Amino acid sequence: MGKEDHQRVAIPPPQPFVKSLKNTLKETFFPDDPLRQFKNQPRRRKFILALQYIFPIFEWGPKYSLKLFKSDLLAGITIASLAIPQGISYAKLANLPPILGLYSSFVPPLIYAIMGSSKDLAVGTVAVASLLTASMLGDAVNAMENSKLYLHLAFTATFFAGLFEAALGIFRLGFIVDFLSHATIVGFMGGAATVVSLQQLKGILGLDHFTSATDVVSVMRSVFSQRHQWRWESAVLGFCFLFYLLLAKYFSKKKPKLFWISAMAPLTSVVFGSLFVYLTHAQKHGIQVIGHLKKGINPLSIMDLEFGSAYLTTAIKTGIVTGVIALAEGIAVGRSFAMFKNYNIDGNKEMIAFGMMNIAGSCTSCYLTSGPFSRSAVNVNAGCKTAVSNIVMAIAVMITLLFLTPLFHYTPLVVLSSIIIAAMLGLIDYEAAIHLWHIDKFDFLVCMSAYIGVVFANIEIGLVVAIGLSLLRVLLFVARPRTLVLGNIPGSKIYRSVDQYPNTNKVPGVLVLEIDAPIYFANASYLRERISRWIDDEEDKLKSSGETSLQYVILDMSAVGNIDTSGISMLEEVKKILDRRELKFGLANPGAEVMKKMNKSKFIEKIGHDWIFLTVGEAVGACNFMLHTYKPKTVTDESEKYSNNV
Amino acid sequence: MGKEDHQRVAIPPPQPFVKSLKNTLKETFFPDDPLRQFKNQPRRRKFILALQYIFPIFEWGPKYSLKLFKSDLLAGITIASLAIPQGISYAKLANLPPILGLYSSFVPPLIYAIMGSSKDLAVGTVAVASLLTASMLGDAVNAMENSKLYLHLAFTATFFAGLFEAALGIFRLGFIVDFLSHATIVGFMGGAATVVSLQQLKGILGLDHFTSATDVVSVMRSVFSQRHQWRWESAVLGFCFLFYLLLAKYFSKKKPKLFWISAMAPLTSVVFGSLFVYLTHAQKHGIQVIGHLKKGINPLSIMDLEFGSAYLTTAIKTGIVTGVIALAEGIAVGRSFAMFKNYNIDGNKEMIAFGMMNIAGSCTSCYLTSGPFSRSAVNVNAGCKTAVSNIVMAIAVMITLLFLTPLFHYTPLVVLSSIIIAAMLGLIDYEAAIHLWHIDKFDFLVCMSAYIGVVFANIEIGLVVAIGLSLLRVLLFVARPRTLVLGNIPGSKIYRSVDQYPNTNKVPGVLVLEIDAPIYFANASYLRERISRWIDDEEDKLKSSGETSLQYVILDMSAVGNIDTSGISMLEEVKKILDRRELKFGLANPGAEVMKKMNKSKFIEKIGHDWIFLTVGEAVGACNFMLHTYKPKTVTDESEKYSNNV
Repeated sequence: MGKEDHQRVAIPPPQPFVKSLKNTLKETFFPDDPLRQFKNQPRRRKFILALQYIFPIFEWGPKYSLKLFKSDLLAGITIASLAIPQGISYAKLANLPPILGLYSSFVPPLIYAIMGSSKDLAVGTVAVASLLTASMLGDAVNAMENSKLYLHLAFTATFFAGLFEAALGIFRLGFIVDFLSHATIVGFMGGAATVVSLQQLKGILGLDHFTSATDVVSVMRSVFSQRHQWRWESAVLGFCFLFYLLLAKYFSKKKPKLFWISAMAPLTSVVFGSLFVYLTHAQKHGIQVIGHLKKGINPLSIMDLEFGSAYLTTAIKTGIVTGVIALAEGIAVGRSFAMFKNYNIDGNKEMIAFGMMNIAGSCTSCYLTSGPFSRSAVNVNAGCKTAVSNIVMAIAVMITLLFLTPLFHYTPLVVLSSIIIAAMLGLIDYEAAIHLWHIDKFDFLVCMSAYIGVVFANIEIGLVVAIGLSLLRVLLFVARPRTLVLGNIPGSKIYRSVDQYPNTNKVPGVLVLEIDAPIYFANASYLRERISRWIDDEEDKLKSSGETSLQYVILDMSAVGNIDTSGISMLEEVKKILDRRELKFGLANPGAEVMKKMNKSKFIEKIGHDWIFLTVGEAVGACNFMLHTYKPKTVTDESEKYSNNV
Repeated sequence: MGKEDHQRVAIPPPQPFVKSLKNTLKETFFPDDPLRQFKNQPRRRKFILALQYIFPIFEWGPKYSLKLFKSDLLAGITIASLAIPQGISYAKLANLPPILGLYSSFVPPLIYAIMGSSKDLAVGTVAVASLLTASMLGDAVNAMENSKLYLHLAFTATFFAGLFEAALGIFRLGFIVDFLSHATIVGFMGGAATVVSLQQLKGILGLDHFTSATDVVSVMRSVFSQRHQWRWESAVLGFCFLFYLLLAKYFSKKKPKLFWISAMAPLTSVVFGSLFVYLTHAQKHGIQVIGHLKKGINPLSIMDLEFGSAYLTTAIKTGIVTGVIALAEGIAVGRSFAMFKNYNIDGNKEMIAFGMMNIAGSCTSCYLTSGPFSRSAVNVNAGCKTAVSNIVMAIAVMITLLFLTPLFHYTPLVVLSSIIIAAMLGLIDYEAAIHLWHIDKFDFLVCMSAYIGVVFANIEIGLVVAIGLSLLRVLLFVARPRTLVLGNIPGSKIYRSVDQYPNTNKVPGVLVLEIDAPIYFANASYLRERISRWIDDEEDKLKSSGETSLQYVILDMSAVGNIDTSGISMLEEVKKILDRRELKFGLANPGAEVMKKMNKSKFIEKIGHDWIFLTVGEAVGACNFMLHTYKPKTVTDESEKYSNNV
């Protein structure tokens, strides 16, 4: 077999258990190697680096200039003009007092500006998490009848959301967010946007009572059962503003330079709507208005956190679910813009920043905040350079809270509904869904089940189904790995799948199979059966065509990343099955992990180290050599014989 | 780049969606191709084959001979002698009337003999499922106070266990059982055996009251709080029989020909124990006895199934959990002996047989049955040839039921406890656990958490933790794939991991990375970060050693079995990152699935088909050619330039 000419497949040297455990843990929790920059630095420098690591403002702050501030000022004012009406709208969506939307655009952006690592994220409340808060807390406590408890539970949920977010970051479990795949997010966001838009029919049609369910069937039933209560005045006003907002959006999309039209549209809608109501006294003709908003900045709410309440578990559950959703949106938004502007975002650091801003928020009358896409996109378009734009926005909101709240007294609710719908329609990304269908049918299935789950059942079910399907796919990949028959590419020693490369030639008497996944308990019995079936198929084929009968089976292990004890047993069983059928069994190119475990379990001795080859080419070469030199009769002692002969 | 000399990486031809879906479903649910033998057969033959497929007795029955029967008769009588005391013991363990243990060894073995495909499995009740029944049903209904309802719920649970088992088989979901890995089963069985043995302290010490909890802390507290109630008579008798049973086991293990000593030991213990009590009137001195057993075969219990009860969900839950556990044990046992005797067992067919025997059992006063390891091992040792040994056992049990039940009146409970302990000690497979530790630390962790969970918490928790950890491992494999740096094996065109093959040489200016898992949403961000880090490391190293700076990054995709849309986005991002760092990006050997998706998403156009190579060797060759011919200045238009030049 020319052993001396060839490199043997190496068994990696044994590693101390503690060292390999340390490596595994490092790869699992610190893939980005955050301590890299601390290496070989003096102590003082290490302290500064640590400070900058935790509070990025110390990194970019000292380099801040007036020129940057000019850009940030403009961007900050632009996003404030969006933040005020959006904040009020989303607070209504969460069944919370409208003023909370303003409070939530004051404290959290300041915290984020100090701790966040994105230059582009604009902080504020988000529609989906608002709706989710309403639906999850609403199941336990009625927001109308028991509004104080509901409000306190919302603060408590925000506190736990922040705690959970920060914990994920501190314990470096940020990868949990990665389990929300792109397909899941597209479907989920689309579904949530649909549901949120449908909820706005309440405001548009001027209805007083409305279902608290979010599924399309309940909402439609609620709308149509109240046909006689529809207010045409409200509907006409609503559609006018919606048309205006969509038109502004359309122009901004056509000419990106005109982004400010779209950015200012919500505020101008609010101004015109309020003026219209004030002048026409429309509130007396069925147009509902916001009414009184308290003047003054955020009151403390730390004493309102309900840690002793009977609803504590509801608050914790709501906090965790909404916290993860908000985090996923915020991090995805931050990453997209960082990618666009060529800088890096540290996911775990972002989580800590999000967590701290929500913990601080929950003590200062804010509810759950994140980095909404719409507001951040406006921020970027307006030319923001650093997180200072968030500070500017916070100051603008503070001024509003201190002096301008009475101006919102006459703002019609229907305008807020139009603002929400206009924002939501942009989130229904049907083009992405079509793209998924073209590239990957399973991703499309995940996306659609998230959408359908959210729209027809409820938000949690949609999310759970989509994540479940995504995980199922990963499990199915391992549970049902592909096994491929390999053939020789003419004029080379390369072996590739005969399905992918139709010009390959099979080697007479040798069956080469490639396994495409790690060999684990979940696929061990499947693989044993599948390999038997390949051999049956091959023997049938050879018998019917009268070719050389099958003598060798080679498993290409290149793609087998790992193996567990069930996998080793499977290989032993395959060896037995092949012995019984008088076939010889060889392995090609097992990796380090696989070699290590085959060595420890003495499988290498059973199969013979000479039957483990570096490449499929060498394995087939060795088989051909034997096939043409010897004619094996019995199988059991062959391997010893050959290795002695060589 | 010598394109004309080399095979291009092929893009597989597009397949109609329906066809590829059909293939996927076939591989997922019919990996064993059960319809294979039906191909090209006349109609009459197909019918016979179908009959034989559903009822294997029609396959082996016609060939049955007197010679086979002699072996089966001996084996059947041997297992009956084990079945009777074991049946009574396990029924006590399940808090059910002892007679149920005999009933359960009559009807189910007959059904299995007709429908089962194993020649060696001996059917009967199993200890773990019995204890699980007691603990799950006992949580809802007290077996002492409400014994009739408890009994009916046990029948109902058995019915649902059977229904679930049969459904798994019919819908070809047998692979669910594969998710109970070998490591999980070792730990779980060991834990259950420990718990079951500890429960026997009640019988050994002759206690009247005992905790219904199964964890070691509660059991020990219960035992020691009743110190003044311990009966030394009972304990002495128990330890004597235990010693005798273990001694018999020891001899049988030493000399396999003496298997019958061990097989008959339980029955002889019962006979001697009963005689002892009968002669000494020990029942008046604190030795508890079985008491009256009703004569006659199984009464019908179909009317006792409690479909309308308030405890229906408890029964269903118990049925599903115990059914899966019993199935896993039965199938593992059947497979082991089939492997040993060189025949095949069809998992899905076995599930249907198990399901039918439990459904039939639930209607005839039996509770959950499976294929216990101890009884089957005795069956094999006694020389069984076909399932007829089960029929013989059933007939022997029937005769017992009809005529011999009064003989068990004086059988002391302490003997039954000894029988259970002796059987259980064999299930604590500490050698297997040590083996796991040596080969695979993670499997050991799974095993130990199953053991500790069962012993210190309860059976369900142990199981859930172990399965959760096993699944976590699969997910972690995908979420944190290994990336390996490849080097050239001297004197060849082969590239292998530099960690595994220390004699490889890195190619100057080229970084070759191998990814060891499919690229899915769960690892896309990790891989992006990890690849960046490899490049940083490499550049640092090159900078400090003053070698040629890095120019090319080649990803070896051989082990990437599949990719989803998140994975494609990841590749696009890596391409952008590399462009920004002025590095060229090539791929080596992507598989069919990956090529298909890269093609559909136009990623191949972005990277250039010329930058996708059949092997790493070719990729490095092309890089070297360019490295020594051109000195790239700008990066963006290079690929077009080169492909035009070639």
